Amino acid sequence: MSVTHSLAQFVVAADQATLPDWTIHEAKRTLLNLLAVSVSGSRSNDARILIDWAQREGCAERASVVGANLKTSPSTAALVNGYLCHLQDYDDTHFPTVLHPTAPVWPAVLASAEERRISGLAALAAFVLGAETACRVAISVHPWHYDAGWHITGTAGAFGAAAGAGRVLGLDAAQMVAALGAGGTLAAGVREVFGSHAKPLHAGHAAARGLEGATWAMAGFTASDDIIGGRRGFWAVHSAAGHSEPALLGDLGRRWELKMNGLKPYANGVVSHPLQDAVIELRNTHGLKPEQIASIEARVHPLVPELMNRPGPRVGLEGKFSFQHCAAAALVDGAGHHAQFSDAKVADPIIAAVRAKVSATVDAAVNEDEVYVSITLIDGTKLATHVEHATGSPENPMSDEALRAKFDTLTAEVFDAGRSAALWDAVWTLDRAENVDEVVRLMQPGRGTRAAS
Amino acid sequence: MSVTHSLAQFVVAADQATLPDWTIHEAKRTLLNLLAVSVSGSRSNDARILIDWAQREGCAERASVVGANLKTSPSTAALVNGYLCHLQDYDDTHFPTVLHPTAPVWPAVLASAEERRISGLAALAAFVLGAETACRVAISVHPWHYDAGWHITGTAGAFGAAAGAGRVLGLDAAQMVAALGAGGTLAAGVREVFGSHAKPLHAGHAAARGLEGATWAMAGFTASDDIIGGRRGFWAVHSAAGHSEPALLGDLGRRWELKMNGLKPYANGVVSHPLQDAVIELRNTHGLKPEQIASIEARVHPLVPELMNRPGPRVGLEGKFSFQHCAAAALVDGAGHHAQFSDAKVADPIIAAVRAKVSATVDAAVNEDEVYVSITLIDGTKLATHVEHATGSPENPMSDEALRAKFDTLTAEVFDAGRSAALWDAVWTLDRAENVDEVVRLMQPGRGTRAAS
Repeated sequence: MSVTHSLAQFVVAADQATLPDWTIHEAKRTLLNLLAVSVSGSRSNDARILIDWAQREGCAERASVVGANLKTSPSTAALVNGYLCHLQDYDDTHFPTVLHPTAPVWPAVLASAEERRISGLAALAAFVLGAETACRVAISVHPWHYDAGWHITGTAGAFGAAAGAGRVLGLDAAQMVAALGAGGTLAAGVREVFGSHAKPLHAGHAAARGLEGATWAMAGFTASDDIIGGRRGFWAVHSAAGHSEPALLGDLGRRWELKMNGLKPYANGVVSHPLQDAVIELRNTHGLKPEQIASIEARVHPLVPELMNRPGPRVGLEGKFSFQHCAAAALVDGAGHHAQFSDAKVADPIIAAVRAKVSATVDAAVNEDEVYVSITLIDGTKLATHVEHATGSPENPMSDEALRAKFDTLTAEVFDAGRSAALWDAVWTLDRAENVDEVVRLMQPGRGTRAAS
Repeated sequence: MSVTHSLAQFVVAADQATLPDWTIHEAKRTLLNLLAVSVSGSRSNDARILIDWAQREGCAERASVVGANLKTSPSTAALVNGYLCHLQDYDDTHFPTVLHPTAPVWPAVLASAEERRISGLAALAAFVLGAETACRVAISVHPWHYDAGWHITGTAGAFGAAAGAGRVLGLDAAQMVAALGAGGTLAAGVREVFGSHAKPLHAGHAAARGLEGATWAMAGFTASDDIIGGRRGFWAVHSAAGHSEPALLGDLGRRWELKMNGLKPYANGVVSHPLQDAVIELRNTHGLKPEQIASIEARVHPLVPELMNRPGPRVGLEGKFSFQHCAAAALVDGAGHHAQFSDAKVADPIIAAVRAKVSATVDAAVNEDEVYVSITLIDGTKLATHVEHATGSPENPMSDEALRAKFDTLTAEVFDAGRSAALWDAVWTLDRAENVDEVVRLMQPGRGTRAAS
């Protein structure tokens, strides 16, 4: 049996009733996170380019785009939703590989599930299995593949999307092998385009190509017997420097790579997340105001100044790469969402004043997800804290409460509180829902809540 | 200026009025060949999978699918038409790289041109510049890229499609750089899937992704400044073993890679083409009938038996890899179209009887596009010929008359003679047409000719 067939067999045969409960819980959390960042992202000009294009495609209305009043074909919805989910770099991360599994996989699952009207639990299980496929394909070629210049979300994501959509469509093992072949041969995306619209496009591409591969496989489309392990397949061509078969296939159903997936609490580079955790903790504990602050001093991992030393950012995007701005916005707003990295926030005089008081010293003994922070107040008071593992790391997952706060804040950019709460509840109870109708209806601003419609 | 910008600058600035006449002539010939093989291919079950899917996409009717009564979005039309063009392996070949430039480039140009209603000459010029882009990107990474396992039609083709569609859309140089970036970062397709539906899919993928990249770039989509030469770009990631900048950029506008592109006279492996040329020449010159034949003996290049020694093929696809069947079908039918490789043709007792009389001996002094053939008749007559360069090779391009015969034969599977002739004429006079309307109307069976509509 080829390695691709072994993986396909696992995906089609897994029993949704016996998946660990935490995997279903995590599937809800990743969907809630997707909805939060996508609803927020959907209002930007960056989003309009693809949403307007999808509108002009004029497809039959079979699947919904998040945050827009647009129904389109499943493939087009998957493309746009994958793009929106990754647009703010605020989705989840599989820590061992820096793959972002949700952006390619959930859009493929959700669009297929909407049309096929499968149960909520079946959709959640399809995501779990699709995400596991993406993470395992990713870790089987890590670090060689990423080091060669590939954006692993675009490449490994296509396999995950094919697996997830194929699971929704009820493919048998041979069809699943073909789906992985058709999606996987189109695995693409190079790191050269980081910092442009083409980066989130990779996630949408993976979602759409995976979904199409599964759709065509159901209709008899043929592809390779072993797209992953074949002589001219993914391992050989996309990762010539190395690969690991045990990483792909070992302990299927017992080892879960999804366990190593974390949600991001802040919409900026991960190395300053511990610093933001610490500042927000002191701010909230002591009710700190900007005008009280004399200095914010941090002992940090060497990567913090190496990647993010930018004391005077001029525009929002530069703020995402300034630990000084991240700390100042954390102190003033108590948050690090995309809104904290607008051009206006970077120019805000109150934040700029705090920013000028932030400094960091490197300590090689501090870990990457760790920080020591002390804040000195104008009145001489000294406050200090130590964050051992930043929020969102595997050792310290974001709590459901913190996710709710992120969800409420981001969806409030588009929805009123009632709508946000209804959408949260619909996802939170999705494992008991007959289908995904309520979720996809509530995620579009122009469509009523159950009470209103 | 980045290498991508230099290439983009050439594509946007070239004056369609001063392109060499032969390039416009060749653009017509490649379009006629596309129409012939796509109309023929459109009737197969292989084609139905994608045509039926595109139908269900239900997109706004803006661009036409060849051979089907389907109008859809430009992107979807490009995908399906690229697939159809490469489905029978009967499209054109850029000999230095084995790139098939028409299948990714013409569908992107044609779909854009149909919607934008640009002139026929502008469409032909856009193909010339898109094909040149594809061929130059291909030759800049040859042979390293193909040897690494890539299907060069799927990868280099995406750049050509972006360039061709971008030219139709009238992009400026900066937008063209973004179009190449958006299309090029999604360059994909591995050789592992050869022999399956996923192979022609690569051509359709390239066509669609290039067209989308150009469309989005016009709307402000951003990508890399140098998708080809950047540190994590196409050369570095897709061709780590080597690349050539002079091959990409040398003598732009003077050296034309399109010159090295040839049309295929037979729908099977290229190594037996000289043998088929020779048999058809003797057949036609002497009016040979199957029952006259005692033996067909050939002196051939070593690759012929190495790749195609299959004296008893059982199904059509095996016939494409049997020099014995190719020679027998050439003798009986005087042709080597897809129809000569059906299961029925392979089982035909008349062809099988001739096939049993075909033999070949290897001669290392015979070139790959050369053959010596002698036919002995039952009455003892011996006939012999020597083909120095097979039809379709750069030294012996297919004549316009031979292309017409191929076109008439293949389109006759769907169209009556009047429709075929009208379509031929529409392409043949396209450089004087106000737009591509007549071509796209005539290429769909359900839509009337000018007289009938």
